[in-house]
Amino acid sequence: MTAPRTIALDCMGGDHGPEVVLPGAALSLVRHPALDFILCGSEARIAPLLDPLPALKARSRIVASEIVVQMSDKPSQALRRGKGSSMWLALEAVKSGEAHVAVSAGNTGALMAMAKLILRPMADIERPAIAALWPTVESECIVLDVGANIGASARQLADFALMGAAMARALFHVERPTVGLLNVGVEEIKGDEEVKQAHAWLKETTDLPLDYRGFVEGHQIGQGVVDVVVVEGFAGNIALKTAEGTARQVGQYLKAAMQRSLASRIGAFLARDGFRVLKQKMDPRRVNGGTFLGLNGIAIKSHGGTDNIGFASAVDLGYEMAESGLIARLAGDLEAFHHKIGEAASQ
Amino acid sequence: MTAPRTIALDCMGGDHGPEVVLPGAALSLVRHPALDFILCGSEARIAPLLDPLPALKARSRIVASEIVVQMSDKPSQALRRGKGSSMWLALEAVKSGEAHVAVSAGNTGALMAMAKLILRPMADIERPAIAALWPTVESECIVLDVGANIGASARQLADFALMGAAMARALFHVERPTVGLLNVGVEEIKGDEEVKQAHAWLKETTDLPLDYRGFVEGHQIGQGVVDVVVVEGFAGNIALKTAEGTARQVGQYLKAAMQRSLASRIGAFLARDGFRVLKQKMDPRRVNGGTFLGLNGIAIKSHGGTDNIGFASAVDLGYEMAESGLIARLAGDLEAFHHKIGEAASQ
Repeated sequence: MTAPRTIALDCMGGDHGPEVVLPGAALSLVRHPALDFILCGSEARIAPLLDPLPALKARSRIVASEIVVQMSDKPSQALRRGKGSSMWLALEAVKSGEAHVAVSAGNTGALMAMAKLILRPMADIERPAIAALWPTVESECIVLDVGANIGASARQLADFALMGAAMARALFHVERPTVGLLNVGVEEIKGDEEVKQAHAWLKETTDLPLDYRGFVEGHQIGQGVVDVVVVEGFAGNIALKTAEGTARQVGQYLKAAMQRSLASRIGAFLARDGFRVLKQKMDPRRVNGGTFLGLNGIAIKSHGGTDNIGFASAVDLGYEMAESGLIARLAGDLEAFHHKIGEAASQ
Repeated sequence: MTAPRTIALDCMGGDHGPEVVLPGAALSLVRHPALDFILCGSEARIAPLLDPLPALKARSRIVASEIVVQMSDKPSQALRRGKGSSMWLALEAVKSGEAHVAVSAGNTGALMAMAKLILRPMADIERPAIAALWPTVESECIVLDVGANIGASARQLADFALMGAAMARALFHVERPTVGLLNVGVEEIKGDEEVKQAHAWLKETTDLPLDYRGFVEGHQIGQGVVDVVVVEGFAGNIALKTAEGTARQVGQYLKAAMQRSLASRIGAFLARDGFRVLKQKMDPRRVNGGTFLGLNGIAIKSHGGTDNIGFASAVDLGYEMAESGLIARLAGDLEAFHHKIGEAASQ
């Protein structure tokens, strides 16, 4: 028997608000019947949408708010005006322990700023990171940071390794996830000083709760060579979006190629079952959700423009993370690691 | 009538040496009969390989060297031991004006170090960049820097914009190529200070020899939204390799999907003409070649592991760049630009 898991939803976030959030939550509930929900947002908009979703209704309670963070708000504006908003209340529910995870499809910058303020960074963590699930030929890996910050010190990169490993442990159920540092392959310039120092720490520190595999390059991410890929947020964000764009581009090529002749059109029709599987495999909604790591609580950012299927993936991810004991375990791992590298530095 | 174009080839570079370089050059010569070649390397190995390639033999002269830069040499070792090597002589031929472009499949770090030493950076250029051709749904764009350096100042990023525009002018035959700065999309952290300052300069400087379009994100590169994408070398290298890896990954998915059932196998067979076109379109050998920009002469790095078809693409690229007047024009553009931003800074 699994314990109930409660997820707080910012029902007003994203391009579509509760019209996508609630059907998405209902979909995830079918897959994970142990879920409970705290629905934050406009009661007048939420309540009528719950009527056709009786299973979700039975597992939910509404925490009402009429304040909505706009997608165009700057983080500073969101912090000023957004107190008591649906986004704010979802994070508050995590802070108070009523919920295990908050999920929002709202404004990323606002969500990060609010999450930092409400959940606070973990002890000794200078910066939280955003972790993304990345499809690989084998299954999936975790890449972080994909855009919480620009640049990262050696210490921050090493912390990201531990944070990513904690998430991999929760999602992939391996005790010592494999971790690689993303680097460039040109001999002359193999990595900057921060990357090199992080590499040295991860390589030399004994008894790490992860299996450090050294440097990986961009083309290896999708081959699934490691469970966790660590990179600073500028390059990580660009890598993630470039991969999404390339997958779409190849899809466009494929579509055009299959339209080329009558034979290829007939062939594509016959092979439609294969193409359907390919389409599912490449569906960006399958791995929707950026996880904020390094705070005293888990917040997940869904793509703002996704539909209920994509939002359900973000809720699924929240379910996997909830109650995995991730944060308590991570806090201990980080403390031990900082102690060791502190000792090494003072020798 | 076009003037003859002479390309100096490092025949000993790459995983296969003259066995790939010479057939590759012969292939490019079929497409560009105006080419002449200076073949740098071991005469004992080159001469017998030329016999079955009479057309190439007729347009080539050998500059003999028995010194070979190894793929495993560090740049410093290559500079120390590589004087008079096949790589060195190819670059010397560009310096002396005997050749218009040097092409090598050798060690990237060594080639960059030697090219800097022999060709020297252009006046006022702090750092050369490596530019890559990137396939787009429309045709191709240029991305730089893909790994000559880690990090870039605002001034260097702005210089990369002018360098990339000069290359685009030579290859795409547009007078004012469109240029974008690669950036991340998270509102809170839109770019670091260097990226922002480069953006401001490119936006505000009048009469630039390019059409600056502002920020672009990773997923837009392959959509061909601009002719030139500017980024510092760490993120650029990672983006390039991530795109290559993702294309390969989708190809693996597609292959597996087409093996799924008898119907999909028959369908794939019927559609083989379409798949052949797709394969050609995605063939990494089509756009093989990193161009070193910002030096007093053009050097092109071919992938070390490519075959004759890939090497021919690098030679084709050299042909397009040769005698395009790129460097003289770029020198003038850079001087005018530096003068303008100098004026702006001193106001």
